[in-house]
Amino acid sequence: MEKNVELPDFTKNNYPETTKSAVLNKTFDIQLKDTKLGKMGSHDLLIKVMAVGICGSDVHYYDHGRIGDFVVKKPLISGHESSGIVVAVGDEVTKFKHGDKVVMEPGIPCGKCKYCLAGKYNLCPQMKFMATPPVDGDLSQLIIYPDEFTYKIPNEMSYEVGSLSEPLSVGVHAAQMLSIQPGKSVFVSGAGPVGLLAIMAAKAFGASKIIASDAEPERLACAKKMGADTVIDVTEQDVKTTTNDLTNGEGVNTVIEASGNVHAEQDALLTLSRGGKIAYVGMPAQDEIPLNMPFIQGHEIQIFGVFRYANDYPISIEILTENLEKAEMLLTNFYSLAETKSALENTRTNKQHSLKTIIYPNEQLRKNN
Amino acid sequence: MEKNVELPDFTKNNYPETTKSAVLNKTFDIQLKDTKLGKMGSHDLLIKVMAVGICGSDVHYYDHGRIGDFVVKKPLISGHESSGIVVAVGDEVTKFKHGDKVVMEPGIPCGKCKYCLAGKYNLCPQMKFMATPPVDGDLSQLIIYPDEFTYKIPNEMSYEVGSLSEPLSVGVHAAQMLSIQPGKSVFVSGAGPVGLLAIMAAKAFGASKIIASDAEPERLACAKKMGADTVIDVTEQDVKTTTNDLTNGEGVNTVIEASGNVHAEQDALLTLSRGGKIAYVGMPAQDEIPLNMPFIQGHEIQIFGVFRYANDYPISIEILTENLEKAEMLLTNFYSLAETKSALENTRTNKQHSLKTIIYPNEQLRKNN
Amino acid sequence: MEKNVELPDFTKNNYPETTKSAVLNKTFDIQLKDTKLGKMGSHDLLIKVMAVGICGSDVHYYDHGRIGDFVVKKPLISGHESSGIVVAVGDEVTKFKHGDKVVMEPGIPCGKCKYCLAGKYNLCPQMKFMATPPVDGDLSQLIIYPDEFTYKIPNEMSYEVGSLSEPLSVGVHAAQMLSIQPGKSVFVSGAGPVGLLAIMAAKAFGASKIIASDAEPERLACAKKMGADTVIDVTEQDVKTTTNDLTNGEGVNTVIEASGNVHAEQDALLTLSRGGKIAYVGMPAQDEIPLNMPFIQGHEIQIFGVFRYANDYPISIEILTENLEKAEMLLTNFYSLAETKSALENTRTNKQHSLKTIIYPNEQLRKNN
Amino acid sequence: MEKNVELPDFTKNNYPETTKSAVLNKTFDIQLKDTKLGKMGSHDLLIKVMAVGICGSDVHYYDHGRIGDFVVKKPLISGHESSGIVVAVGDEVTKFKHGDKVVMEPGIPCGKCKYCLAGKYNLCPQMKFMATPPVDGDLSQLIIYPDEFTYKIPNEMSYEVGSLSEPLSVGVHAAQMLSIQPGKSVFVSGAGPVGLLAIMAAKAFGASKIIASDAEPERLACAKKMGADTVIDVTEQDVKTTTNDLTNGEGVNTVIEASGNVHAEQDALLTLSRGGKIAYVGMPAQDEIPLNMPFIQGHEIQIFGVFRYANDYPISIEILTENLEKAEMLLTNFYSLAETKSALENTRTNKQHSLKTIIYPNEQLRKNN
Repeated sequence: MEKNVELPDFTKNNYPETTKSAVLNKTFDIQLKDTKLGKMGSHDLLIKVMAVGICGSDVHYYDHGRIGDFVVKKPLISGHESSGIVVAVGDEVTKFKHGDKVVMEPGIPCGKCKYCLAGKYNLCPQMKFMATPPVDGDLSQLIIYPDEFTYKIPNEMSYEVGSLSEPLSVGVHAAQMLSIQPGKSVFVSGAGPVGLLAIMAAKAFGASKIIASDAEPERLACAKKMGADTVIDVTEQDVKTTTNDLTNGEGVNTVIEASGNVHAEQDALLTLSRGGKIAYVGMPAQDEIPLNMPFIQGHEIQIFGVFRYANDYPISIEILTENLEKAEMLLTNFYSLAETKSALENTRTNKQHSLKTIIYPNEQLRKNN
Repeated sequence: MEKNVELPDFTKNNYPETTKSAVLNKTFDIQLKDTKLGKMGSHDLLIKVMAVGICGSDVHYYDHGRIGDFVVKKPLISGHESSGIVVAVGDEVTKFKHGDKVVMEPGIPCGKCKYCLAGKYNLCPQMKFMATPPVDGDLSQLIIYPDEFTYKIPNEMSYEVGSLSEPLSVGVHAAQMLSIQPGKSVFVSGAGPVGLLAIMAAKAFGASKIIASDAEPERLACAKKMGADTVIDVTEQDVKTTTNDLTNGEGVNTVIEASGNVHAEQDALLTLSRGGKIAYVGMPAQDEIPLNMPFIQGHEIQIFGVFRYANDYPISIEILTENLEKAEMLLTNFYSLAETKSALENTRTNKQHSLKTIIYPNEQLRKNN
Repeated sequence: MEKNVELPDFTKNNYPETTKSAVLNKTFDIQLKDTKLGKMGSHDLLIKVMAVGICGSDVHYYDHGRIGDFVVKKPLISGHESSGIVVAVGDEVTKFKHGDKVVMEPGIPCGKCKYCLAGKYNLCPQMKFMATPPVDGDLSQLIIYPDEFTYKIPNEMSYEVGSLSEPLSVGVHAAQMLSIQPGKSVFVSGAGPVGLLAIMAAKAFGASKIIASDAEPERLACAKKMGADTVIDVTEQDVKTTTNDLTNGEGVNTVIEASGNVHAEQDALLTLSRGGKIAYVGMPAQDEIPLNMPFIQGHEIQIFGVFRYANDYPISIEILTENLEKAEMLLTNFYSLAETKSALENTRTNKQHSLKTIIYPNEQLRKNN
Repeated sequence: MEKNVELPDFTKNNYPETTKSAVLNKTFDIQLKDTKLGKMGSHDLLIKVMAVGICGSDVHYYDHGRIGDFVVKKPLISGHESSGIVVAVGDEVTKFKHGDKVVMEPGIPCGKCKYCLAGKYNLCPQMKFMATPPVDGDLSQLIIYPDEFTYKIPNEMSYEVGSLSEPLSVGVHAAQMLSIQPGKSVFVSGAGPVGLLAIMAAKAFGASKIIASDAEPERLACAKKMGADTVIDVTEQDVKTTTNDLTNGEGVNTVIEASGNVHAEQDALLTLSRGGKIAYVGMPAQDEIPLNMPFIQGHEIQIFGVFRYANDYPISIEILTENLEKAEMLLTNFYSLAETKSALENTRTNKQHSLKTIIYPNEQLRKNN
């Protein structure tokens, strides 16, 4: 157990009725409130939440109040990239005990529909995904969570790095779709936190060549640290020309588009070799993206839409365990739960100079310099 | 051997130096000419071409002089959907003999590049594909062709049906990409010859439900004969609404877009269920097709560009053999080699009332009513 | 609703406390008893069981008292290939209503382990599979079953054919593992009920050539009716020689070994072509099967152990719906619930002259001639 | 170019008619002879062979005169794990030039059969594989070889390491069959050169846990250096018990059996988890290997026979480039061409204390201590 972290001695029958949470009431209005904890089921854990990463979607609900069809209609607890300590366990919990260091996969599928039965639970129409209206997130001091979607992390992994399991899982899911492996070249378009973790994933899957692009020099520098062999500054270089030069004119085997920039989504496609595969991870600001169909057909391109992840958390934890130092580099901004509004504001307005922002619902383990 | 078909008794050392071919000189200028046959290699066959189907690409070179980067710069023999009789065999040919009824796969890859070695020879950059400039087609009385890309067809299959192996192979290739099998629903968008043969392919792969769309009632009627369970007249019904109604609101598992119509390419995507797969076969008139990215991502759609086919001819021949009567329904117009210009003109201007046009380089086996 | 079938008007709160069941006390001792029904949950159905097929495993528990590690230590209700009518529904059931004709997939996995989450629920270590000790089967007049593993069947499908969904699902699972599709040849080794239904599955998946073997002429005749192109009488012909002759000396692409005969398991392997795939479905009487390793390596064979099925019931129902007449041919022996012991005895001692035996827990819809 | 390596200045028209080769006349009789070089074709390279690794098959032909159906009936040049320098190029060679450092993939398939066309050229029935009777190997000072199956290696890679591309390709091929990736555990059974390189491959593919076994402590020590997390001394520990202990009782996800020991082949299977996959690489001394069928079925195991490799050389070169130091550890014994008999004798009788033996057809770059 980290020093300076208190380990409360709750039991399944004896724990607080309420906890402090960061609740988004409406756009730009997020406040600390007491929220109810409810009753632990036999397979539930009571978790003291230690670190919560801020995701673009958290910011988007904060400043837009909606993402597509998901609208904040009533107060919503934010946060879904999280780690913590088990402080009480339900009756039938066998894999966890008081004091375990854990991360929580934020989506709970129905377990019964055909998508769940077929192993594609990320496509479950009944999915309850944290901080996606109307399902509350876990920017709270305590949460009750099912053991099924909670995973132990090793003691040597910090809570902050543990919370990266969530965005890394997106990269792992994409790497699996693209069959990244030794011998394959990968172009990661966009080097924000998701892109940078996608580089880490591609490296872990054995990619032989990784090229990354962004408009921010700091991010490109970080991309190199994550494992990119070459980086492309899109303010100076054309991605198609450059990736072709780096691949003997053939183009790359695989692309992970992680920027969500409309032009990048179009251009990234064109960097592919014949038979190439692209995963679209970044969410664009407009719905219709004009894609070059003769290129898709003539090169027999495969395009994969990526929606979250399934069965990827254990893999992400393995990868992070092997990359603790690299993962630490992504952590740039730190706030207490009371400072949640500042954290969101800063992430919203100042994206380029930060990578991952962490909020501490309990003890603030790190501070901004 | 069909009655009324002459079987010339050539040998590898004794055959004509020239043959009659339909040569496209420039747009709208196609004429019969004597063309040279060249020298048979040890693995070559001399084939008397019996039936050649007219493809959209033949028409496009005829009236536009180019398709994308492929430009008719010098006279080009048309035609690549063909069947014939072996009339002489090279020294090392073991699988064919004089008199065999055959079809010719029209693309000859290099056999040495990494795409060829990996079994994706349709992506070979050195591919020599018939009737794609500057490679001549086989709208000729005789051709010399390598045994490697020639396949026997059963005697009970007509030459005309045999020539359908080519467009059917596109549908088979798409069916394989989409993993069509029992339990899967398929929407075939566009019921021209390629779409109709895609229905035949989907049926052969065991699709549980096939829905087809078109704007022409005759084509929709033919789609039903090919195996479509339901047809959608796009002049009257919305494809998304209708396919959703037919699938309990879930959408179809797979789509083969065979129309090339820009709106159809956009709409066909939206008929998919979560985790659905779409193969784009039809070639659109414009390059950039606006596709709905949030739908692709949120439903985790997989998009497959389709470029011709590889290793699919033997499968197509198997499927045609099981569907001789259905295949005959697709044959609607018949011309002699001398009438090639009329055949192209009629296909060009009158598409809606015909399906597949056949040209006979030698004996004219069928005539228009 | 079939004539002569009574439809009791139960509700979730009003149904009998007990039902009549065929209970296996110990080897050779099976009797009718009143067994408790328990309480319906919110997602449960109360089902009047109409037809139960007898499986080799039912017979094996009857005459051996165990299969491997599964031992009959306390009285066990037999039966797991079943169909019925919904006669009451739980509070949250939305997909079923009173009077629906259904089949019940006999295994209920935990839904939470990594195998379940990955879509391989047949491998769930907590699987509760009917009539596998200590889990009761459904050779009962009434059962309570979760809606999640119950499926509607069309009215035109008889209850007896519906019960074939279970053994057919094994064949469908094997067909998927083997990637059976048009262009592939399939050898089905053993033409008992599972083998015969595997032929039906292979045909539905589009296999281009199906060869079947058995020692019984009646079964070989039935194999032809199911879709086998050629049959091999193993008392007269060698399977390797014959399958090679039928495939131009290459061997077959895929094998489904459904006999469980030790020699057949060895020989079936050798019928494969280079790169061939074999699924072992039949359970042998001895554990160690000597397999030819140089053949496996030199031909780069893929061997698939088959354990039940997952996500295959809906596909099986689709296939049966398309093959109602063929499926009827497999039904050969019919008993009332009171005659269960006779049914098992007859199946045990007289296997060769029967195919599928059906027991009717309620109205006896058919009788032996 | 390495110091002390002479680079002869041949051209396609001007090179020696003969070269010195190590020729196996009959068992235990291998001698240096002048052998003919033949005529370079337009796509051929003339290569000065710099290093040739000795494979178990070379030894087996030396002391048994045959492997299965392949019998040494006439004098055979040994050797097929090789690297060299290009010293002349054919007319149409574009990718290589005089002085390039290369490795030669030792099998040349027909390029025309259905296995070749489908990308499985290792299964080509017409395969010409070096040092497999009657096809000569390349334990020669000069060879003529097609550019298609020759690959450049980086200058920083030693010739000796380059020759490891061949046995590493077997491990890469197995890793691909088994879908090794992050999150997967791997048990490598047998830590000879092939097993050790399989560990390197598994590591490169991102395996999360690698366990290796052998009977020799030196090999186990080397296994750890290659990337094994845990090693099992089979003289002291049971592999099933130990691998189960290391995987929370579940068993490993994948196995590469590289020992060829009959008992190891049986035991390795039993280390697998449900849904596990095993690749059989090691060639056993007896044909029939008794495998536990109820285990295969109940755990739904997938077994893959491995026969050489296809499309794997480029990947192996990438992996070796990343692991130059590790690869060097496998090189233990060094001989001149004149010492070939000693090299084979030593490898034959003294296997346990050596790993990979290298023979230098030209300059002897390293010597035994």
